[in-house]
Parts: sequence; C-alpha cells; structure tokens
Amino acid sequence: MISEKMKVMTANGSAVRALFEEGKKMAAKVGPENVFDFSLGNPNIPAPVNVKDAIIDLVNEEESINIHGYMSNTGYEEVREQIAQSINKEFNTKFDQKNIIMCVGAAGGMNVMMKTLINPGDEVVVIAPYFMEYRSYAANYDATIVEVEPDTKTFQPNFEDLEKKLSPKTKVVIINNPNNPSGAIYSTETIKKLGELLAAKEKEFNTSIYLFADEPYRDLAYDGIEVPYVTPYYHNSIVIYSYSKSLSLPGERIGYIVLPYELDDYQDIFDAAAVATRILGFVNAPSLLQKVVARCLDCKADISFYDKNRQLLYNGLTKLGFECVKPDGAFYLFMKAPVEDDMEFVNEAKKHNILLVPGRSFACPGYVRIAYCVSPDLIERSMAKFKELAEVYFK
Amino acid sequence: MISEKMKVMTANGSAVRALFEEGKKMAAKVGPENVFDFSLGNPNIPAPVNVKDAIIDLVNEEESINIHGYMSNTGYEEVREQIAQSINKEFNTKFDQKNIIMCVGAAGGMNVMMKTLINPGDEVVVIAPYFMEYRSYAANYDATIVEVEPDTKTFQPNFEDLEKKLSPKTKVVIINNPNNPSGAIYSTETIKKLGELLAAKEKEFNTSIYLFADEPYRDLAYDGIEVPYVTPYYHNSIVIYSYSKSLSLPGERIGYIVLPYELDDYQDIFDAAAVATRILGFVNAPSLLQKVVARCLDCKADISFYDKNRQLLYNGLTKLGFECVKPDGAFYLFMKAPVEDDMEFVNEAKKHNILLVPGRSFACPGYVRIAYCVSPDLIERSMAKFKELAEVYFK
Repeated sequence: MISEKMKVMTANGSAVRALFEEGKKMAAKVGPENVFDFSLGNPNIPAPVNVKDAIIDLVNEEESINIHGYMSNTGYEEVREQIAQSINKEFNTKFDQKNIIMCVGAAGGMNVMMKTLINPGDEVVVIAPYFMEYRSYAANYDATIVEVEPDTKTFQPNFEDLEKKLSPKTKVVIINNPNNPSGAIYSTETIKKLGELLAAKEKEFNTSIYLFADEPYRDLAYDGIEVPYVTPYYHNSIVIYSYSKSLSLPGERIGYIVLPYELDDYQDIFDAAAVATRILGFVNAPSLLQKVVARCLDCKADISFYDKNRQLLYNGLTKLGFECVKPDGAFYLFMKAPVEDDMEFVNEAKKHNILLVPGRSFACPGYVRIAYCVSPDLIERSMAKFKELAEVYFK
Repeated sequence: MISEKMKVMTANGSAVRALFEEGKKMAAKVGPENVFDFSLGNPNIPAPVNVKDAIIDLVNEEESINIHGYMSNTGYEEVREQIAQSINKEFNTKFDQKNIIMCVGAAGGMNVMMKTLINPGDEVVVIAPYFMEYRSYAANYDATIVEVEPDTKTFQPNFEDLEKKLSPKTKVVIINNPNNPSGAIYSTETIKKLGELLAAKEKEFNTSIYLFADEPYRDLAYDGIEVPYVTPYYHNSIVIYSYSKSLSLPGERIGYIVLPYELDDYQDIFDAAAVATRILGFVNAPSLLQKVVARCLDCKADISFYDKNRQLLYNGLTKLGFECVKPDGAFYLFMKAPVEDDMEFVNEAKKHNILLVPGRSFACPGYVRIAYCVSPDLIERSMAKFKELAEVYFK
C-alpha cells in the first residue's frame, strides 16, 4: 500500500540497514568489541559545556512561552540577527536577519530550498563523490539528478565534466564542503572558478543557477586549512549550515539557511522558503535550540579528537600500503580499494570484522569510506585487522 | 525563479500574512492594547513545571551524546515504548514501541504519512470545516483534496456527503478531533459509524483507506467530554499526536505517529515512514525533547485557563445575540456570521479592531473562527467591541 516512490526509496534504504543489521549479527557472534564499524557518520564527541549551560540558563531565565512557543516560521528574529552578525564577523559579509532562515538541520534546509526552487524535470547537478541522500531530496521534488564524474587525482570538482553537465535545465548545483565522503576541502581557487563558470553558464543559457553550499562539516577542517565562504564568489549562492557537527547536536536538528540579497528574486525566494518550511511540516526549527545556538556562536566542539583519529588512521593505513585521499576536513577518510571492485573489497573487509561503505554509494566506485568519528582505541585495535586485510592484497 | 507550486502556496500564505500585517498596522495606530486579535491559534499558557525540571535533570544526568546525538530515525526505543504503554493505560490498547514513530510535530507527522502512502492523483478526503494546511500537505504529494460539506447543525461529519465523496481513489480520510476550527468533538457514535462506513467502502472498492486522526487538541476537551480513541473502531487508523497544546510546546516540534499492527501492510508502512522521516529532512524528532516528553507523560497543561476563556466568550457572545457552535474542545469558537458573507463580517469586525478568520478559510463560509488562547483580560475588554459589532446587525 505504500507509494510507488517510497517503494524505491525504502528498497535503497534497506541496503544501508542491511549493513547495520550485519554489524549487529557480527557483534553477537564475535563480541561488540571485536567489530570495527567505520560505516556511520555519527559525531561521538560531547557538545561543548556551554550548550548545557545555555540550556539551563534559558529555562531558568526565560518565560516558558518565549522558549517553547511559536515564533515566525523563519525563526526568532534576534537569533537570526545574531547568527548573521557572527557570519559577518567571520567572513566579512554583510548579512542581517532577513538573510537567515532557521532550519531543522541541513537535511531540512536542503528540502526547504529544493521545494522552494524546483519544478519537476529541473536538473540538480551533484559532484561525485557525493552524499547519497541528495538523490532522495531531489526525487522528493521530481528533479533529475545529474552526476559529475569524480576527479580522483585531486578530489576537487572535475570542471571539464561539470561544464558538459550544465544545461539550460540546471536549476541547482550542490557542493558539500568539506566533502562527505572524500574529506577533501574545495579550495578558494576551486570556488572562484566554480562561481565564474556558473555565472558564464547563466549568461549563456539566460537562466538562474543556484549553488547550494551544504556545510554541516564547515568547522571540521584540520591543519588550519580554510574552507572558503561561497557568497562573495557567486551571486546565486545559498549556504545551508547545521550545528550537528560543530556543536555535536545531530539529534537536535538545528541549522540555518543563508539567502543573500544578491540572489535572483531574493524576496520571492525568502517568502517562499518561509512557506515551504511551514507546509513541509517543519513549521519552524526547534525553539529552545534556536536560542541555545545563539548563545554558543563562539563555541566549537573540540575537533582535536577527530584530528588525532585522522592522523592515526591515515598514517596507519598508508604505512600498510593503502592509497588514501588526504583527509583535510569532515571525519571521513576515502581509501582506494586495492581491487577494482569496491564491493569485493568491502566484503573482504567484513571477513576481518571491518565495516566500510563502498564508494559506489557515493557515485565513486573503486573506493571505500572510513568514518573516523569513533574511539581512538577502536582505531588502534583495528590496525591489526587492517594489516590482515592488507596482506590479502599486498603480498 | 521559485517553483510553480510554491507560487500558488506563497500567494495563499500571503492572505494570512496580510491579516497579520493589518493587525500590526492597527496596533501602531490605536495601540496594541486596543487590538483584539483572535486570529492566531498560538497556545499562551506555560508548559507544566515538570517540563523545565525534566530538561534540567536530563542535561545534568545524561551524557551529551545520549541526549543530543543521533538515534534511530523513528526515535529512541525507550521513549517510544514509554509512550506506547502510556497510550495503552489510557485507552486500553495494546501498542508497543514498534507502533510508534516520533515526529516533528503533527505537521511533520502528517507529511511523513502522506509521503509514505500517497501516489499522485490519490484522493485525500477532508471534512469541512477543516484545517486549511491539509490542502498544502496533500499538494506536496500531488494528491487531490476532496471536501465533504459541513453539517452545520451538529458539526459532526456530514455522513451523507462523505459517503458520496468516497471513491476507489480515496487513499486517506483526515479527521481532526477536537476540531479546528469548530471546537466540536466527534463522538464515539460518530467514530464508530465512520469506521463502519470506511470498512464497507474498502470492501466495496477492494482498496485500503487510511484514516488519519490528527489529534493535537486531544487533551483540550472540556466538561469531561471524552475524545474517543479511533484505533479500536477501524483497522486502518493512523493517529498523529503532538505535544504542542497538551504540554504547551508548539515551538519544539515534538509529537508521535501511531501505526497499529492491524494496518494493511503494517510492516511496509512502518519501514517506509522511517525512511520518509529521513529523506524529507526531518531525520528524527528533536532528541532532547523526545526524552523530555517521556518524563512528562502524566502531565498536562492546565486547561482550566482555556476553559474560563471559553465560557467567558461563549456566554458573552450568545448574550449579545450571536449564534455560536458550542465549543467542547480545542481553543476555538466558531460563530455564525450575522450576514451571509463571512468576509463582509470579518471586515466589519476589523472596523471595531477585532481580528477574526473567515470560515471560508476552513471550507465553511458564513462562519468566523475566534481563537480564545488569549488573555482573559483581552476577552473581557473585547466584549464592549463585540457589543458595538452586534449593534450593527441586531438593531
């Protein structure tokens, strides 16, 4: 009785669940401590203590109705203004509250903006490797996903292929920076080049092409590498941010959308996004958490934890002979499978109780994703297993 | 540049915003204390103190990752189990956690279930007067809304018309009990009759017809009147509940969906709804608030506040000569306009600084909705203005 669309989506969802179920079975067999599950991107560091303090202060200081009641569908004005000023301070932009809509996490923000902009048949361009959920979001609004081939030398966008894939039907281009699954950070040069290309194509096609910068991993960048802010480089940029990773609040579903005044049809888009937030059923981002993040704008989760894991894993795996993409951001390491078929490698890894996600799930076959938001102890203990795995291929 | 669908939806949304803007202008002109705004259904009583206690206890007692982290898309198992047991206790049902999916408020729950079940062209039957947002939710999934004429004698469903409107294309029937905007409560007799009719039609058409019981106002029932629980009366019932009104937490977006084992294709529906929760961008209901409501299952907001307002308003208005539907539940009073054209009456009321919503917004012209979730003082002071308004018509 479920809808035709959901039949397809549920079948896709089952593949991931199958992996999860397999992990559980494996744990029952060999003990949970002997399962090396690198499949889930679930932040595992605590929220900064400021979050707890903010929650307690808010419920003690403010009237119930001011922290749990309805507000404008776009969010509390003062929260939006504080966020705008905080972005301005960090990126030298000129936003105010009218450029900000609070959203139910980045996934909520992506859906709101697609609902706002997409007509059936419009094309949404994604750059491999890419977060597989974009396919579902686009399908919700009957858009067609157009994949750009990966550039496996640099893991920056493959501009040659991107240029070919842009068409008069292109309504949205999505970038995810830092990237899930590659851990690569698109450079300032990349963003500049991308802005120039999109502007030229808009002119050529006489259309508007909106660049969605999906940035839940913005604050997970290592070695001081900068994640460029897109809005100065392209007029039709929409930034979608989430506090899931920066404040370790993934379950709370709290983020924001940046809609610059420079957008073609800015006011129509802002108004429609407010209505989309309501009718999609979000209504508004959770109220208490809006006020909490506004009090934590200068806090970040301590990423040194992820950084240590990153180095442990990268150094360990390259030493064993594996070819890894240097992970500059997020908490993923993308590793080349030592055989052509990434699924074959994933299955071999399972035999050693290591759970990985195949690159084909991100439109980048021949690789595997290793999520290192796990305990350092698990990484250290996994090295013996990775060594066994290496010996299968490198002897 | 916004999508064609959103053009229509934003235009509709603008009508409501126009009323809101008008109120603001009026307040600037005559002073906010002289504007009698009965247009908004915004709960205005504080959350029970248990909510505050639960929040503080949770952030003090539990690890950050256990209250702010990811969990299953359907919600924390233990929260779902506690809710199931609490429903069982109150309604003598036999649910467990596998019958419960936590959702981002009732609006989120409605969208998840429509996404799960509806194919384009399926019919969603609504019973006038009805909450206008159902139109948008159905449109999100390309369903056709079929309106059942109101029964303005009883404000129970018009069964004669309902029977005519059910067809082989009917996928969903929505009831909202207690009803927004009428304040009527569908009786046990009504629910029983409805269950029998739907079962007979399923047999006749050889289809499944899902009854959505949208119940954000369940706990706002006065004079000891019972709001019947639908699941014992019809096998394909889906209950959608929100804590917005019962715990005065509308901004927090927290509720649940009940999917009984008796549903046709129960397991497929449960699995698809879990995936729909994720891909629509909700991902999961806000994590901390899930745990908060689980600790407040025996608490209710103090509805004596609304009850006093209800009596003040109903007695005052009937005494002035207005014909009112007796409000048994929710916080709305539905009043017959003393002229045929409800819009004309709304405009006349505005001249007396009274803001009302026309019945045509709920597919029930000739009436107006008065939301009495306002201060008793405002109601008392409004009576002089309603008297002026009465004198326009009843002299």
